[in-house]
Amino acid sequence: GAAPAVHAQAAIRWRLASSFPKALDTIFGAAEVFAEKVNAMSGGKFVVTVHAAGELMPAFGVVDGVQQGTVEAAHTAPYYFFGKDDTFALGAAIPFGLNSRQLTSWFYDGNGMKLFREFYDKYNIINFPGGNTGAQMGGWYRKEIKTLADIKGLKFRVGGFAGKVLSRMGAVPQNIPGGEIYQALEKGTIDAVEWVGPYDDEKLGFQKVAKNYYYPGFWEGGAQLDFYINKAAFNALSKENQAIVESAASYAHTEMQARYDNRNPAALKRLVAGGVKLRPFPKVVMDEAFKQSMALYEELRQSNPNWKKIYDDYSAFRKDQNQWFRFTEATFDRYMQSAKL
Amino acid sequence: GAAPAVHAQAAIRWRLASSFPKALDTIFGAAEVFAEKVNAMSGGKFVVTVHAAGELMPAFGVVDGVQQGTVEAAHTAPYYFFGKDDTFALGAAIPFGLNSRQLTSWFYDGNGMKLFREFYDKYNIINFPGGNTGAQMGGWYRKEIKTLADIKGLKFRVGGFAGKVLSRMGAVPQNIPGGEIYQALEKGTIDAVEWVGPYDDEKLGFQKVAKNYYYPGFWEGGAQLDFYINKAAFNALSKENQAIVESAASYAHTEMQARYDNRNPAALKRLVAGGVKLRPFPKVVMDEAFKQSMALYEELRQSNPNWKKIYDDYSAFRKDQNQWFRFTEATFDRYMQSAKL
Repeated sequence: GAAPAVHAQAAIRWRLASSFPKALDTIFGAAEVFAEKVNAMSGGKFVVTVHAAGELMPAFGVVDGVQQGTVEAAHTAPYYFFGKDDTFALGAAIPFGLNSRQLTSWFYDGNGMKLFREFYDKYNIINFPGGNTGAQMGGWYRKEIKTLADIKGLKFRVGGFAGKVLSRMGAVPQNIPGGEIYQALEKGTIDAVEWVGPYDDEKLGFQKVAKNYYYPGFWEGGAQLDFYINKAAFNALSKENQAIVESAASYAHTEMQARYDNRNPAALKRLVAGGVKLRPFPKVVMDEAFKQSMALYEELRQSNPNWKKIYDDYSAFRKDQNQWFRFTEATFDRYMQSAKL
Repeated sequence: GAAPAVHAQAAIRWRLASSFPKALDTIFGAAEVFAEKVNAMSGGKFVVTVHAAGELMPAFGVVDGVQQGTVEAAHTAPYYFFGKDDTFALGAAIPFGLNSRQLTSWFYDGNGMKLFREFYDKYNIINFPGGNTGAQMGGWYRKEIKTLADIKGLKFRVGGFAGKVLSRMGAVPQNIPGGEIYQALEKGTIDAVEWVGPYDDEKLGFQKVAKNYYYPGFWEGGAQLDFYINKAAFNALSKENQAIVESAASYAHTEMQARYDNRNPAALKRLVAGGVKLRPFPKVVMDEAFKQSMALYEELRQSNPNWKKIYDDYSAFRKDQNQWFRFTEATFDRYMQSAKL
């Protein structure tokens, strides 16, 4: 074996800023899992402290924080940063985008990682997939959504980029951090909210205010989180520690989806038992949202070269994936979902 | 930071026996990914060499190999070992079992890992999930499957435990390692074969012999592979290296599913362009297989306490998962699969 390198003796201390509140052991928990694994694999010589939204910087300040080196790392949902460049959203979720497994596949074995490494370079960011929520629910509404008219004027908390599609349908989207949504809903500042799904949503307490719980969250068929690492901090690591960061992120990526999948079913049962009404979005709403989404993506292809470069690869991948998934994967799942188990 | 531990200087060399042939960069590749990550994270001080089926021991000899310490590690599909105990199958796939995400969730956040660590203890095995194929195809048939009568007497290569259900339907199942299937099909020793899906199957060349390609592979809705580690070898590792093994396995777990998902669509298109006929199994076949599966599982509950203990947890989890997945996840996927993309 090689002689032990000197860096193995040095304690490395990183700060990680999360965009999420501590109460959410799923999405905030992914950063804790990352830190635990880095710590364990380095034998305590590489320590990452995890800070909830607002502790070091605001929930939506973490890209600036990593870019400027205020913190070495962040854990966030890229689509929050569509104001900087809409292209961020393609690394998290866009309306009618890839589902969880498909997005992971695009990053791990397709062109997703390569394209986003290039894109993030000007932000001094090295990105690693850091969890997925799976297909999200479509949110909590005081009033039923029966026609397109019910969307018009709706003050709706929705995460990041998706608001662009909903505003084309007449909604008034609000990009509010997770930890601040409940208050806005309770005070009546907003009419409706979406966060993730039953397990998180129940904790945040939306069922106390709005009883109509819609699906699917067509704007988040599989929302991916990312670990953002400051480029200089990453490059200063030994090759071993760089590999440790990569695998710790991967572990957290898989663990987060596993937590949501394991914890959502019981939460959904509790919510329904408590009087929540599960409702599918009307087809007319889905179809109009689809039409507006595709129109928006085409506009962005014309106006934003970053979007065009990444979306063209993403959308070709999406087409192939859905052609394949509809055979054996969908047929198996459909059979199981209708079977008496 | 802590002083560098002495073990960091020692070279650790492990041998890993795979049950798969080198040609399959998906399923064999997962063991190579595991080895690469262990090597990178340890800075070359922990080296795992990966050996294809037959190189050190037969494809189906790897549990004995790990149990006896002939090798430190193996990468295999647990259901091959149903002859030792049918319970092995629950860690890989059973007919009408969990899909890929659900099985990962059961292992990472449900009771799957705890239950299997207990089960494997008597085999001197520490297990880590080591990839999933996703829902498999139902295989290649010289003749069409139109009724239950077409299953009777069918000499069918099928992986491991699933043969028990198919034999109850009159088939004559054969558990043949991946590297030896093509020859058996070509020689006419068997009438039909299943392996995994388009990408692997095309490489193995089944389309040259049988043109009817059925779906879904209802006996493998999400077949998980495992890394098996010899208990004494694992316990001899430092805590750091134990954590490295765990995260390397996790990386390989996620990467393998990503490869299948990314590579299957193009292979399916090539196969169909080459004249392969895609066919869904008739409902009568699915329903009879479901009925026989549930009857078998109940018999095993009565006769095998290991099965009962793990299956009872597995089946409760399966019920909850399918209740939840049918709402937002399935509705989103169905919309995307029918959309003009």
